[in-house]
Amino acid sequence: MLHNIVLLGTVTLLGVLEQAYFSLQVIAARRKYSVSPPSTSGPPEFERVFRAQINCTEYFPLFLAVLWLSGIFFHQGTAAACGMLYLYARYCYFHGYSRSAQDRLAPMYFNAGVLWVMIGLSALGILHVLVSHYLEVDIL
Amino acid sequence: MLHNIVLLGTVTLLGVLEQAYFSLQVIAARRKYSVSPPSTSGPPEFERVFRAQINCTEYFPLFLAVLWLSGIFFHQGTAAACGMLYLYARYCYFHGYSRSAQDRLAPMYFNAGVLWVMIGLSALGILHVLVSHYLEVDIL
Amino acid sequence: MLHNIVLLGTVTLLGVLEQAYFSLQVIAARRKYSVSPPSTSGPPEFERVFRAQINCTEYFPLFLAVLWLSGIFFHQGTAAACGMLYLYARYCYFHGYSRSAQDRLAPMYFNAGVLWVMIGLSALGILHVLVSHYLEVDIL
Repeated sequence: MLHNIVLLGTVTLLGVLEQAYFSLQVIAARRKYSVSPPSTSGPPEFERVFRAQINCTEYFPLFLAVLWLSGIFFHQGTAAACGMLYLYARYCYFHGYSRSAQDRLAPMYFNAGVLWVMIGLSALGILHVLVSHYLEVDIL
Repeated sequence: MLHNIVLLGTVTLLGVLEQAYFSLQVIAARRKYSVSPPSTSGPPEFERVFRAQINCTEYFPLFLAVLWLSGIFFHQGTAAACGMLYLYARYCYFHGYSRSAQDRLAPMYFNAGVLWVMIGLSALGILHVLVSHYLEVDIL
Repeated sequence: MLHNIVLLGTVTLLGVLEQAYFSLQVIAARRKYSVSPPSTSGPPEFERVFRAQINCTEYFPLFLAVLWLSGIFFHQGTAAACGMLYLYARYCYFHGYSRSAQDRLAPMYFNAGVLWVMIGLSALGILHVLVSHYLEVDIL
């Protein structure tokens, strides 16, 4: 039954690669602005790249959780499509934030929107299983 | 077999919503204490809210891991009940820490206790499967 | 079919225990160098321990994702063995970084290498399922 989760696996792996890419960008920014570990303070240009990566990293577990919940309880294809949109929005967010704090806002709202859609799909799918299993009512 | 994981899915989704709530609290604190991104330094009131959210975020993947391990290898209902306790303790921790560093301690110890219980249940469940599969001994 | 994921569960649980151990080390370093929460600044000795834990925590979700992807889509035993190597490399990284920023480098490169191997195995396994399911070609 691996084909029931293979699209979720694909999006997860692309997400891991995107996070690895963000990490490499921070390492490059550390070199460019001469900020050696363990320090994390530096010019605003460095701090924006650093904070962009932190923010993407903080949301990554939430993203994976709702990707798999919506994919398993609602519909794999829809979840994977939302997941690809999310990863694209994160890419825009990272590069927007690297330019200026202002430029992070538009992709941030888009990101949040996609995440809320996935939360909604997960809730619908979970509710359906809860109701049909515990109340023995099929709502579809 | 979705009903075998639907309670774990429910607790996971509630956990995601709780993390989203903590994030919104940080955004509100940024406005209240005028701390603009990418800065993360400010008055202690801001830094406590900020650190509370960071701490909850750091533990979230550990929590999800032991929630699902204990739910799959030990017992779904028990794991989900522990998970709900954990999320409640995190809520108390976040608001305690927002008030004072001292007020974070009691819910922090409670949190840690619930996490250790879930680690113990996971270990028991995993050990049972390992022993019964590899040694062909049924310990129950 | 729990025996198909029990080794992945075991490595995940060991990873959670390792993260708990790193957290306790930070608490000990806070006491030793008198850095009270919510502050995270202090002498370089403290900041190295703190940053080491943050870095391990940031990578933990990526590690879990590729551990389970490579274990489910490629081969459980191979993935679990790579996972154990990764956890060992993280242990060396943490204690190396605690000593000096220089001493974190060798285990960091080893860590990254193991992670890329797991990413590669995941990609192979996922590609195989994608191709055999959607193109109905069995590449093995």
